[in-house]
Amino acid sequence: MNALEKLLQRIIQRVNINLREFDFDVTPFIEGLVSQKELETVHGFYTVSPQHTLDFRFSHSNLAGSYFLGKCRTTNAILFKSDIRGDELKKKGTIFKAAGFAIPLTKNEGIRIEDSFLMKTLVHNYSHDPESPERFTISNTVSTHYANIHGSPTDGSFLGPFATVDLTTVNDCVIGAYSYVQAGEINHFHIDCGTVWVRSPGNFNFLYRYPDNALRPYIRFEPGRQPQGEFVDFIASHNKEFDKIFATVNRKIPIQVPDTASLDRFAVVLPETTIAENVLVSQRSFLQNASLGKGSNAQENCFIINSNLEGYNVTAHGAKLIDVDLGLKVFVGFNSFLRGQNSRLQIGKDCIIMPHTIIDSAAPIRIPPGSLVWGYITSEQDLQENSIPLEDLRKITSGFSQGHIVFEGNGNSFVKAFQNRIMHILDANGAFFDGKKGKGHAQRNQNISFNIVQPYAEGKKKGLYPTMVIKP
Amino acid sequence: MNALEKLLQRIIQRVNINLREFDFDVTPFIEGLVSQKELETVHGFYTVSPQHTLDFRFSHSNLAGSYFLGKCRTTNAILFKSDIRGDELKKKGTIFKAAGFAIPLTKNEGIRIEDSFLMKTLVHNYSHDPESPERFTISNTVSTHYANIHGSPTDGSFLGPFATVDLTTVNDCVIGAYSYVQAGEINHFHIDCGTVWVRSPGNFNFLYRYPDNALRPYIRFEPGRQPQGEFVDFIASHNKEFDKIFATVNRKIPIQVPDTASLDRFAVVLPETTIAENVLVSQRSFLQNASLGKGSNAQENCFIINSNLEGYNVTAHGAKLIDVDLGLKVFVGFNSFLRGQNSRLQIGKDCIIMPHTIIDSAAPIRIPPGSLVWGYITSEQDLQENSIPLEDLRKITSGFSQGHIVFEGNGNSFVKAFQNRIMHILDANGAFFDGKKGKGHAQRNQNISFNIVQPYAEGKKKGLYPTMVIKP
Repeated sequence: MNALEKLLQRIIQRVNINLREFDFDVTPFIEGLVSQKELETVHGFYTVSPQHTLDFRFSHSNLAGSYFLGKCRTTNAILFKSDIRGDELKKKGTIFKAAGFAIPLTKNEGIRIEDSFLMKTLVHNYSHDPESPERFTISNTVSTHYANIHGSPTDGSFLGPFATVDLTTVNDCVIGAYSYVQAGEINHFHIDCGTVWVRSPGNFNFLYRYPDNALRPYIRFEPGRQPQGEFVDFIASHNKEFDKIFATVNRKIPIQVPDTASLDRFAVVLPETTIAENVLVSQRSFLQNASLGKGSNAQENCFIINSNLEGYNVTAHGAKLIDVDLGLKVFVGFNSFLRGQNSRLQIGKDCIIMPHTIIDSAAPIRIPPGSLVWGYITSEQDLQENSIPLEDLRKITSGFSQGHIVFEGNGNSFVKAFQNRIMHILDANGAFFDGKKGKGHAQRNQNISFNIVQPYAEGKKKGLYPTMVIKP
Repeated sequence: MNALEKLLQRIIQRVNINLREFDFDVTPFIEGLVSQKELETVHGFYTVSPQHTLDFRFSHSNLAGSYFLGKCRTTNAILFKSDIRGDELKKKGTIFKAAGFAIPLTKNEGIRIEDSFLMKTLVHNYSHDPESPERFTISNTVSTHYANIHGSPTDGSFLGPFATVDLTTVNDCVIGAYSYVQAGEINHFHIDCGTVWVRSPGNFNFLYRYPDNALRPYIRFEPGRQPQGEFVDFIASHNKEFDKIFATVNRKIPIQVPDTASLDRFAVVLPETTIAENVLVSQRSFLQNASLGKGSNAQENCFIINSNLEGYNVTAHGAKLIDVDLGLKVFVGFNSFLRGQNSRLQIGKDCIIMPHTIIDSAAPIRIPPGSLVWGYITSEQDLQENSIPLEDLRKITSGFSQGHIVFEGNGNSFVKAFQNRIMHILDANGAFFDGKKGKGHAQRNQNISFNIVQPYAEGKKKGLYPTMVIKP
């Protein structure tokens, strides 16, 4: 057994120890999921930019395919085609507000990932945990294909494919495939597949569960097998274009991009695509015949194909738009899959499409402006059951239930929380930049070069990377 | 003036201070030699291999295009498309024999390059200076296109294009274009262009000088201008093939290579090329319609085109073979330019072609086996004047002179010194590997991956690289 195999065994053991009360063995889910050969040959990337805090260290990890935008440390982790983004880390001296406290930060926030296996998992920084505001930690965690760990310390957990933990501290949990959790701190939870859970203790609780078997055609994950279904096939059929981009050291941007916008050099852009002012296109986005209006952002792992975005649109991490028209300020949440099959799917202005929503229809669907939309929709009839006008939701004070959703608490605070977050995302990404004020990622991420880091190609450490410290 | 421009100014000043007694100003030779844009966009490479001592550190240098095979440190240097090879560095605990001493080494040998401008200069490690056996230092030195600094500490010097200092400690010297110096320690020398000088104090002294103007068509270097001539044009016309190779992160080897041979992933290989057992092809070699027999080695920056190498042939750094046939064990020295213009140039077995030899003939030339050959040869007649049978040279005890060469001292010790070195080169490169014993670079350099390092793309440090430490 070489060092890389030993490393994987150790991680599996650590996670199993954490999950022992569920009697959950991650072994059959993980073993054979990635070929040793891939881990040995795919290369990683680390930012070189004066805009980002550089401090990259790792010891005998495997970093295959990882993309680190700023500060990081990993010790004995496997990060396969992950994206550990450190470009929003909190700075020393600022005040962090959380849980009613105003916490002055005594040092720059860092990331630390230890004994973890992250498989094509997006990890975005900025700890929302008031107990560790300067440290974004992931340890003893296994996370699988296209999961998102967003703004949250995570410890001893297992995340299924296309699962998301968002603004959440997760300890010793199992998060099922295509589940979305934004629920503050959770410990010892086993979340079923296809659960969409947004909770703000004391304010509201939003809980949707996909109907039995509805998810099976899209995503299923069984012991001893690779994840399967439409989501996986869809991504696989577009991967060739990414291979080309990752095989070259530098790259010419294939289209005209305004000075105030940025197009990551690891994004795929196919004709006829247009990009307006203040647009941010992140790495591993896939744009084909896409029109991105002013201030829109296309986040990591999203696909925008044959679609028009009018402006100030958020297409969040892993969201997919095919044959879709978005009005102004439409928000499409994490990992949503919106497809107008040979017909148009039209979404009116100010709509909020909840994370992990599937709209997949052969007939045209038109969603009225100002709607909140969730769950599984294949027809106008489903839409009725899985949406509510934001105006109506605002008026709800104690809760409502329709179809597969249960909502408790205050509708107005739910709508406000979402709208504030959308505004924050647009603002942080530079959507409102006026030439002077409002700079964000779109204006700051334009001139980044990347170090390309590679593992040992032979010997006992084959597939592991030498220790490297990068400092300004 | 940004940090990169300041850095270049500082280096120029330091070198001028060292060379003040010659009243030699390097400014007009250096300014404008490399465009700022190239320094900002070309990327560097650093080895990841368990076979090499990793310790790469640098602070605010520009490393554009450099290729570091093993241990290194640079502080405030510009290394443009250089090759600082650290794969023969001496190890702690070994005994280094030099100048009649047997010196036990107390630490691993390191490389240190400070305040230097190296422009497409090959630097090969292994200090031959008994005063600093553990340190290979280059500082306050400007070295220009396709110069070679080989096995020697170098301080406060200027090297013209295609110049070579070999096994030589050079302090405060100016080495003219296409000059070769292998002379022990030299201080405060100004070596004219086209000087080939091999000295072993007390044993022999070989001194050749190119006839006036003979070199002009091949290489000329005038203040305020880029180097010009046949050498430069020849390289420029082949550069496109290198661009393709350096633009990709990894690369498939285009031809079949035996298990005991190695072909660097940065070498150009065009049809119909064949590589036999125990062959070593180094980075930035160019092979086209070349047949490399058993145990041959093609060193950095060499070109082998339409040529057959029978076996155990050394084509040293920067040597060029076009339409040439080499018999067994023919050695072709540094930067030699051997061209059979539409006819064959045939070189018999065991010949030694001295470094910096030009053989350029429209008529066929056949060199008898066992000859020593030097200088400028365009015809059979020139060959008579610029060669001697090794057997005859062996019998010389006090010296001889013919044409432009003066030889003093003992011919046998000269021949022995060269033959020993050739055997050492073949041995170190793995030419004699028998499947068990005799492993060398050909067997060790097969599975190397490279980190690709890039500079800041914006800001005050544009064109400089962040500090990076790489350790096993």
